[in-house]
Amino acid sequence: MNIVLLSGGSGKRLWPLSNDIRSKQFIKIFKTPQGEYESMVQRVYGQIRRVDSEAKVTIATSKTQVSSIHNQLGEDVGISVEPYRRDTFPAIALATAYLHDMQGVAEDEAVVVCPVDPYVEQDYFEALKALGERAAEGDANLVLMGIEPTYPSEKYGYIIPQSKDDISNVETFKEKPDVKTAEDYIARGALWNGGVFAYKLSYVLDKAHELIDFTDYHDLFDKYETLNKISFDYAVVEKESKIEVMRFGGQWKDLGTWNTLTEAMEEACVGEAILNETCRNVHVINELDVPILCMGLKDLVVSASAEGILVSDKEQSSYIKPYVDKIDQTVMFAEKSWGSFRVIDIEDGSMTIKVTLNAGHMMNYHSHKLRDEVWTIISGTGRTIVDGMEQPVAAGDVVTMQAGCRHTIIADTELKVMEVQIGEEISVHDKQKFNLED
Amino acid sequence: MNIVLLSGGSGKRLWPLSNDIRSKQFIKIFKTPQGEYESMVQRVYGQIRRVDSEAKVTIATSKTQVSSIHNQLGEDVGISVEPYRRDTFPAIALATAYLHDMQGVAEDEAVVVCPVDPYVEQDYFEALKALGERAAEGDANLVLMGIEPTYPSEKYGYIIPQSKDDISNVETFKEKPDVKTAEDYIARGALWNGGVFAYKLSYVLDKAHELIDFTDYHDLFDKYETLNKISFDYAVVEKESKIEVMRFGGQWKDLGTWNTLTEAMEEACVGEAILNETCRNVHVINELDVPILCMGLKDLVVSASAEGILVSDKEQSSYIKPYVDKIDQTVMFAEKSWGSFRVIDIEDGSMTIKVTLNAGHMMNYHSHKLRDEVWTIISGTGRTIVDGMEQPVAAGDVVTMQAGCRHTIIADTELKVMEVQIGEEISVHDKQKFNLED
Repeated sequence: MNIVLLSGGSGKRLWPLSNDIRSKQFIKIFKTPQGEYESMVQRVYGQIRRVDSEAKVTIATSKTQVSSIHNQLGEDVGISVEPYRRDTFPAIALATAYLHDMQGVAEDEAVVVCPVDPYVEQDYFEALKALGERAAEGDANLVLMGIEPTYPSEKYGYIIPQSKDDISNVETFKEKPDVKTAEDYIARGALWNGGVFAYKLSYVLDKAHELIDFTDYHDLFDKYETLNKISFDYAVVEKESKIEVMRFGGQWKDLGTWNTLTEAMEEACVGEAILNETCRNVHVINELDVPILCMGLKDLVVSASAEGILVSDKEQSSYIKPYVDKIDQTVMFAEKSWGSFRVIDIEDGSMTIKVTLNAGHMMNYHSHKLRDEVWTIISGTGRTIVDGMEQPVAAGDVVTMQAGCRHTIIADTELKVMEVQIGEEISVHDKQKFNLED
Repeated sequence: MNIVLLSGGSGKRLWPLSNDIRSKQFIKIFKTPQGEYESMVQRVYGQIRRVDSEAKVTIATSKTQVSSIHNQLGEDVGISVEPYRRDTFPAIALATAYLHDMQGVAEDEAVVVCPVDPYVEQDYFEALKALGERAAEGDANLVLMGIEPTYPSEKYGYIIPQSKDDISNVETFKEKPDVKTAEDYIARGALWNGGVFAYKLSYVLDKAHELIDFTDYHDLFDKYETLNKISFDYAVVEKESKIEVMRFGGQWKDLGTWNTLTEAMEEACVGEAILNETCRNVHVINELDVPILCMGLKDLVVSASAEGILVSDKEQSSYIKPYVDKIDQTVMFAEKSWGSFRVIDIEDGSMTIKVTLNAGHMMNYHSHKLRDEVWTIISGTGRTIVDGMEQPVAAGDVVTMQAGCRHTIIADTELKVMEVQIGEEISVHDKQKFNLED
């Protein structure tokens, strides 16, 4: 199975656990049978692997997510990086060209596209496999998944099938309706459109060449900035007549808000939390190192990270976005391909960051124009390279770097470093990268 | 006026803003007309000074609070330090001996004793002054303040006066009653016992000599550990027949729980917080640097500090103590006579602390046996002394100290330092102090 997972969104609706660089799909909130926590993207990736250990998984995303993806899924996963945000048609065209030109997928092979963040069970991925097989073997140009509605939702588009068979031609599509209209649709056998579909690779590649003048993946990537924003639904789906829908009746949840996300949590608390016996329907997700004590609460979600603290009635939590938009903040934590960092103190003229490097990884070789830095190694062993000179480091060692000096750190074992930045203008943009060979 | 403020308590009921070393009276929560925030002890001290600018104020407390008191009130305030916890009779005896032997208060002068944390207006301190004058001039050995009850509380002891006059002899004392009994008391003209009373210095000094074998203040201090725990009420008040009560009808609040404390807050929020328009009767006190977003909450208090986060129904918040007792934690922040510190990161084998030294102040000269330390100066200027060698320091400078090396830092301007401690056993008890002259 060739599967493209669309991974987008800035995830403000799950603030403070999601931020501008960590989207909701990377929050580790689902307990595994082994007792560890995994994110939506890790859960989905594992589920695909279990259904088809040979599946070729490609994540279509922006460059801001590449570090997080490698951090959570390792280096083996394919990534089709959208250099700019250009809506779903350019993104799917680019991912399809990537599969063809970079991964060697043949033109008659099927590709399945689905969002990276559905909360589903194994049967969903079995259905995706069947969807791909239908696209490869059948006559339709597009095979959509239609999810059997469990209530007349206003949040989803609807697909009206011609029959109630497991696979049917599509009669028509309907935009997000009001509840009354949704009830009518459902009475006519309508299905939710979860944005999941399969096609033969050549079909989308041909469509892409029809609408965009490009030669191959590299050429498309290079001119990506010049492409028009257009959705796949508008450019392709709504114009296609040879289009089928396959019913899916298993569990499917869209965990876009705290209200829906907490419904999928197995336990009331993730992280350090105490709920007294008078709490009812309370969920706590605490990424801080200090405890949260909850007393006498009802129907609330409490969530704390280095970015801030949310205390919200569950129902109200779906209205969070405009409030978070007003919070103008430094990004306080991030996962990178080499490890992670967390801002632990901000003062006028200084910023202190705890950096964790995974064993065998290193930072880019870089310098800053407007700040000095001091590293104090707090655990692990590794090496630093400062202006070309390599030195071993271990817990207790200190490295000082003046503005302008080139530096990197290499972790031999997992390495934790307290980095103090000193300067009048501290900014993530003040960074010049170099090759170590220069 | 000679006034002894009893400052006790570990303040767990206002967790996370109070902790083992910061009692509730030091939380800066009351807005001044100048728009700054002051603590209960600062508020009370200022109120006393406004009623009587010549008042001799002595705070009777344990040594754990001495740094906080100097930090908040400066160096002028008298402090009678109880070297051990021995209940109120030894504490009041010690403070009385301190006034006599250390402050030169004459035996016929009156002393007023009151808790450090009542939430009151200026008229309360006018009443204290009157209480002292009555004790100095009248025949009674003890003059108590009786607070006119506003409801039949189960939280206070009651004083039954012989008459309804402003000043009356005391008929009897009653322990904390149930509501029904409290109603009966009030019908009989009973007053709340707020633990406020005045006496001629010689009266308590004589009582102390009767019950304890000591010569002077220093001798009493030295044998303090051997004294029995006994309350002033039991040892003195209940046995005294020449005892009067003076009515006080002004505002008097005991801000011992989040519920009562938030009632006294002028604003819904102290610190960074956003309440959406559906919040009702919500108070937020946030000492962290990140925002708290509250949505759809009712009758709640949210409080966050470096120690933890409380989210509680206001009514429920009075049952907090057993839950906080279970939270076994490193003290995460403290005010010291020389400034303050805050733990910002704890790892196995390391602890990182942000230290703020006030201009003109310095740490003790000290060493540690089991840990190395690294100071990175993040702002300000000063000097370090390491193994006898003095060096100037400014932002960006780094000082490394191996275990065993003696060190201190002196702030010429306000100085902020990131201190990384590295060692297998990091403990506040691993500290040897030295004189700089050694």
